[in-house]
Amino acid sequence: MNSRWFLEETTKDEGSYHSLIDIIHKRNSPYQRIEIIQTGSYGLTLVLDGKIQSTEVDEFIYHEALVHPAMSIIDNPNYILIAGGGEGATAREVLRYQCVQRIDLVDLDKDVVDVSIKYLDKWHAGAFNDPKVNLFFEDARLFINDKHDFYDCIIADLPEPFEGGPSLMLYTKTFYETVRDALNKDGVFITQATSSAVNNISAFVAITNTLKSVFPIVRPYIVNVPSFHTPWGFVLASKTFDPITISQDIIEKRLSPFINKLGFYDSNIHFSLFTLPRFVHEAIKKGKDYIITDSATLSFY
Amino acid sequence: MNSRWFLEETTKDEGSYHSLIDIIHKRNSPYQRIEIIQTGSYGLTLVLDGKIQSTEVDEFIYHEALVHPAMSIIDNPNYILIAGGGEGATAREVLRYQCVQRIDLVDLDKDVVDVSIKYLDKWHAGAFNDPKVNLFFEDARLFINDKHDFYDCIIADLPEPFEGGPSLMLYTKTFYETVRDALNKDGVFITQATSSAVNNISAFVAITNTLKSVFPIVRPYIVNVPSFHTPWGFVLASKTFDPITISQDIIEKRLSPFINKLGFYDSNIHFSLFTLPRFVHEAIKKGKDYIITDSATLSFY
Amino acid sequence: MNSRWFLEETTKDEGSYHSLIDIIHKRNSPYQRIEIIQTGSYGLTLVLDGKIQSTEVDEFIYHEALVHPAMSIIDNPNYILIAGGGEGATAREVLRYQCVQRIDLVDLDKDVVDVSIKYLDKWHAGAFNDPKVNLFFEDARLFINDKHDFYDCIIADLPEPFEGGPSLMLYTKTFYETVRDALNKDGVFITQATSSAVNNISAFVAITNTLKSVFPIVRPYIVNVPSFHTPWGFVLASKTFDPITISQDIIEKRLSPFINKLGFYDSNIHFSLFTLPRFVHEAIKKGKDYIITDSATLSFY
Amino acid sequence: MNSRWFLEETTKDEGSYHSLIDIIHKRNSPYQRIEIIQTGSYGLTLVLDGKIQSTEVDEFIYHEALVHPAMSIIDNPNYILIAGGGEGATAREVLRYQCVQRIDLVDLDKDVVDVSIKYLDKWHAGAFNDPKVNLFFEDARLFINDKHDFYDCIIADLPEPFEGGPSLMLYTKTFYETVRDALNKDGVFITQATSSAVNNISAFVAITNTLKSVFPIVRPYIVNVPSFHTPWGFVLASKTFDPITISQDIIEKRLSPFINKLGFYDSNIHFSLFTLPRFVHEAIKKGKDYIITDSATLSFY
Repeated sequence: MNSRWFLEETTKDEGSYHSLIDIIHKRNSPYQRIEIIQTGSYGLTLVLDGKIQSTEVDEFIYHEALVHPAMSIIDNPNYILIAGGGEGATAREVLRYQCVQRIDLVDLDKDVVDVSIKYLDKWHAGAFNDPKVNLFFEDARLFINDKHDFYDCIIADLPEPFEGGPSLMLYTKTFYETVRDALNKDGVFITQATSSAVNNISAFVAITNTLKSVFPIVRPYIVNVPSFHTPWGFVLASKTFDPITISQDIIEKRLSPFINKLGFYDSNIHFSLFTLPRFVHEAIKKGKDYIITDSATLSFY
Repeated sequence: MNSRWFLEETTKDEGSYHSLIDIIHKRNSPYQRIEIIQTGSYGLTLVLDGKIQSTEVDEFIYHEALVHPAMSIIDNPNYILIAGGGEGATAREVLRYQCVQRIDLVDLDKDVVDVSIKYLDKWHAGAFNDPKVNLFFEDARLFINDKHDFYDCIIADLPEPFEGGPSLMLYTKTFYETVRDALNKDGVFITQATSSAVNNISAFVAITNTLKSVFPIVRPYIVNVPSFHTPWGFVLASKTFDPITISQDIIEKRLSPFINKLGFYDSNIHFSLFTLPRFVHEAIKKGKDYIITDSATLSFY
Repeated sequence: MNSRWFLEETTKDEGSYHSLIDIIHKRNSPYQRIEIIQTGSYGLTLVLDGKIQSTEVDEFIYHEALVHPAMSIIDNPNYILIAGGGEGATAREVLRYQCVQRIDLVDLDKDVVDVSIKYLDKWHAGAFNDPKVNLFFEDARLFINDKHDFYDCIIADLPEPFEGGPSLMLYTKTFYETVRDALNKDGVFITQATSSAVNNISAFVAITNTLKSVFPIVRPYIVNVPSFHTPWGFVLASKTFDPITISQDIIEKRLSPFINKLGFYDSNIHFSLFTLPRFVHEAIKKGKDYIITDSATLSFY
Repeated sequence: MNSRWFLEETTKDEGSYHSLIDIIHKRNSPYQRIEIIQTGSYGLTLVLDGKIQSTEVDEFIYHEALVHPAMSIIDNPNYILIAGGGEGATAREVLRYQCVQRIDLVDLDKDVVDVSIKYLDKWHAGAFNDPKVNLFFEDARLFINDKHDFYDCIIADLPEPFEGGPSLMLYTKTFYETVRDALNKDGVFITQATSSAVNNISAFVAITNTLKSVFPIVRPYIVNVPSFHTPWGFVLASKTFDPITISQDIIEKRLSPFINKLGFYDSNIHFSLFTLPRFVHEAIKKGKDYIITDSATLSFY
């Protein structure tokens, strides 16, 4: 029997365990505890503050699901901001679109990018060497504060928000207003949005409803990322483009140049993605007044 | 900190853990180890041979997803067979259709039904008292052997197949042929089909391809049941009705009498359900020759 | 494989696990979380605030080791105080001495005594029905405050001291002075004294040195109680009788009426008990200034 | 909270867990799975086949307890055999006796010695470079087969015996007879002898009684090695010297040249060591017919 195990707590009552083959790297950055481990279940795995961020085996599901719902609905996306995304896999997916001219990748934590460059080739696939990618080691919230009417797409690829963690203030109404202003008139925002399990759905509901208070079009969706051990929420927020009214032909055409490189996404998934179970609709409806603000953050989470 | 934990192994390298509030009941039946526990994560939980079967909090997802994709596409389903289903929740969902005249519920293990009647009211909701429901404590495989051209719908609500477990022989080509013969000419079969996670997909692939060798229309699908901690596969196999070509109006009309009692399913979910990620299509294609037979069972699983 | 486990944390870096057969009883008293569980390793087990107090299989080791080192060295012990001891097993051992006339058993928590009477027969063996045993549900510290020059023996059978726990103030110099005053001129005090493992010895050292600041004769000792998963410390503190200078014949004679009922103790063990490994002597010497007071408690523990 | 854990199973119902700081080295030798890990509880730790062999923090207890009870009772020990002992710490303790002229260290597994030389300096402390130490990578049983009337002391520093493990045949009557013949007429044998916990004592009893069938003087004893999480048994077997009748002055004199280097042992411990709890005496008496043979091994263990 295996003797070494990695445990990830989902809530105080629930979590997952994985056989731990090796500890490839570990360090404490100024912002968080970083681990790169090898598990028997998912291979190479990036862990921040004890939470699995992505794994060799299924990171493609997470990163495709975070990028293509937004990027594929935008006419000619040129300027992209990635908040977080230090593994480089989100940039890798964005770079598949030939029309992209510039990606600003703003991760607070240089250490995450450093270890990703060293250990996570399968994630970034060289994205950090692409001249279109500009790296900034800053607080994304400050970074976009003076950007106005500029980005076609902003992607929030962040750790889960919790008290004392580095991303708590990147899930508030004030931040989302700054995002809205930094986007151009047709800009699209997309964010990971924590667990959406029926017994753990309140943060997902709050992020959705907070975005609804800022953007006219808000489309929450849920994806299976097996290594997360809980259904994972995402939210797309948009000014004009709506992912569910666009024609499937357009999505298919936009994905076609690189469709063979995708493992999760295609135009069929695009249209099934935004259909939510009844209990999720109801939870969002019931939680419609729960708006996350700078003073009332998601630290309840 | 909590001291008592329930652990469920998914594979030898991976599993989930849950705080264990109480052990409501435990017994060894002639066929399997039965536990009813209270967890901090999902409340009342039925466990067979160490595997979570369903929980108070999210059993509705599993049981709606197992019943409505099949029942909603059938014209006037009258005679239904449930293989397994000892909790009674599958019968509860089938009974929502007024046209149903008779349900044969065939569970090998009388103990499962006994403990369900005693402890799992929320599951069966009185289904065992419904005069339409006929209980048989037999091997489902033997039971249907002499039924021909009879059932409108057969639903396999079984534990996972593993060596030495009671349901191993209910996932083979021979069993599926018997099922096909027991169905009438427009009959539909539906079965749970184990984990479909990218790192654990072979059994789901094998079940799908084995059904393809027996039925003309086979539609695999995947649902998030959070307490399972892994995306869950199901397969619908059909002679004439195809769930993806039927009109949405028909599905909506059939669900409408009881739509407010559903927590997961509706006609929108019906049409997004059968859209699979690219890697699942590919895994099914690659595994097209893997056919489960009585002599080469899923015990590799 | 077993699915249900009981975990006990020894330190934040270490602990033990046990298969959990059943939860016999659980309740929250005003003072602590009480559990009676059945484990595969040690049978019936009493747990307070997540810490194993004693088990069916090896409670005899703990209780004999807590009682006989003190009781066997006293000439004619009549009046005994047990602080804590709600399981009744300490009283059971004290009652083996025919000369005992009265035992005051002072446990803060009536719930512990109630559940012991109901579930732990093997522990108390009827001691609660013995007319010599007087039960008081009070704070032992207050109880002995007005007793002077009275008891022949005081036995502290308490949970481990930790911040917020009910026994923290029963391991301080002020309490030990009260104990000294409540004892008669030849009285003996004995207390359990937490883990004495080489990597976790500071509390044991502090209790020993605090008692040295109050009593002239102090004899720490260490016993293997397997279910505790760590060598367990005890301290005997005495005014005149010294366990290591008394003659073995006397000990043997005093134990002889009930020697066949003992599973752990005899006069040979008595004389080997007080011999400590070199590192323990050194740790006690090095920690000689660590005195636990009401304002500087063992909550570091 | 820590995410990485090392688990050691003691029995199928019980075990211990340790925070896992790092995996220093791991390999599979031809004989066993070797791990050197860093734990938060005991620092650097050698693990064979999932069982903790010894740790930086408390190996001194184990190794002093394995060597000095035998070495200190022998008049002028010159020739010593260590069976197993690949960490080099047993040799380190033997080398403290100036009269030792030669140590034959016979470990089946060269990989254990290689990793010890590389990683476990604190264990061997240079013993492998001592010209008195002769290394042999052979089966100890074959090695001593042709040695007769030769060694003053033979020390068995072996992993626990279990089916399929490398040391199963080094705990049988036939092996002990070979040991007896390889010893000179006053020779002493000492062996580690597995857990002696009240709920897990049968192997310790069987080793003791098997040795009683071969040697005239057999002295079992029990030591607390905290990282083992269970009281640990040892057995000394001797032809003429008896550890409990020798004078304390002699032991003290023999230990005195290096007493300050010892952390556990001294002449006081020597004389308390061989005093066993009553239940151990009884278990040994009851199990007097249990003799381990080549055909009926300890694999029941």
